[in-house]
Amino acid sequence: MIAEHINPFLTSLANTMQTMLGCSLQRGKLMLKSDHVTMHDYSGVIGLTGKAVGTVVVSLSKEMAIKATCKLLEAEESEITPEDIIDAVGELANVVAGGAKAQLEEYEMSVSLPTVITGQGHQVMFPSEVTPLVAPYESEWGPLTLEFGMTPMKVNA
Amino acid sequence: MIAEHINPFLTSLANTMQTMLGCSLQRGKLMLKSDHVTMHDYSGVIGLTGKAVGTVVVSLSKEMAIKATCKLLEAEESEITPEDIIDAVGELANVVAGGAKAQLEEYEMSVSLPTVITGQGHQVMFPSEVTPLVAPYESEWGPLTLEFGMTPMKVNA
Repeated sequence: MIAEHINPFLTSLANTMQTMLGCSLQRGKLMLKSDHVTMHDYSGVIGLTGKAVGTVVVSLSKEMAIKATCKLLEAEESEITPEDIIDAVGELANVVAGGAKAQLEEYEMSVSLPTVITGQGHQVMFPSEVTPLVAPYESEWGPLTLEFGMTPMKVNA
Repeated sequence: MIAEHINPFLTSLANTMQTMLGCSLQRGKLMLKSDHVTMHDYSGVIGLTGKAVGTVVVSLSKEMAIKATCKLLEAEESEITPEDIIDAVGELANVVAGGAKAQLEEYEMSVSLPTVITGQGHQVMFPSEVTPLVAPYESEWGPLTLEFGMTPMKVNA
């Protein structure tokens, strides 16, 4: 993880939350991921490939995921389904990753299909050769965590 | 999900397990993913991008993950660390995805960085526009599940 890679992800998240959802974030201390960091209820995971490979994880509390889904769909909480929440969290991860890759042009990255992890106490772990960074956030809707790991060396099987 | 996309993933998994780990698999009934399918203790998740985007999930019981790690590292169970298991599960997903993409040449796909999900009862969900397939397996080491979703339309943020 190179320092210059960090800002595109932070900027993209703040922009996405503000423009897509009208939600302002307060960022906590940026840190290295350790086993002590617990994810929230929903984690959107999306891969990036190109001249670097990486993964972006956007993890939201249930409350925040529901509020984001309602805002995206312009719907009341009683009208949304569990599938709507999965789609909204996946789309959020997709847009954050897409915005970051646009700022990392030199790596010519593409965004994969997002998946969304659910289950209380789940953890999203990275391979040990990657040092992922964690940015915890608070918002009026609840907590959110952004994690990202990236390596300029192409991992190819 | 197009039928011709299924076989490369099934073949790659069987080959990987046999050649990397010397472990034979018995496949259960291929099915569409539904909410009733619970993942095992460790799930390796990896994205594919190119003229199609997709995600491959290889989910293993704890017992199977430990045995696979020991085999890969040629080590005893007492010698391996939790990080070794994460790395082994991630590498397994990486090799399975890499093998499948080699058989799907026309899509010119690249493999992203794997992440590994832990936590009892976790679920890996796909966006609703994708219809992921699930292949459950049994082996001498325990159960394993392969899930894959792919869409030839490029999703680009």
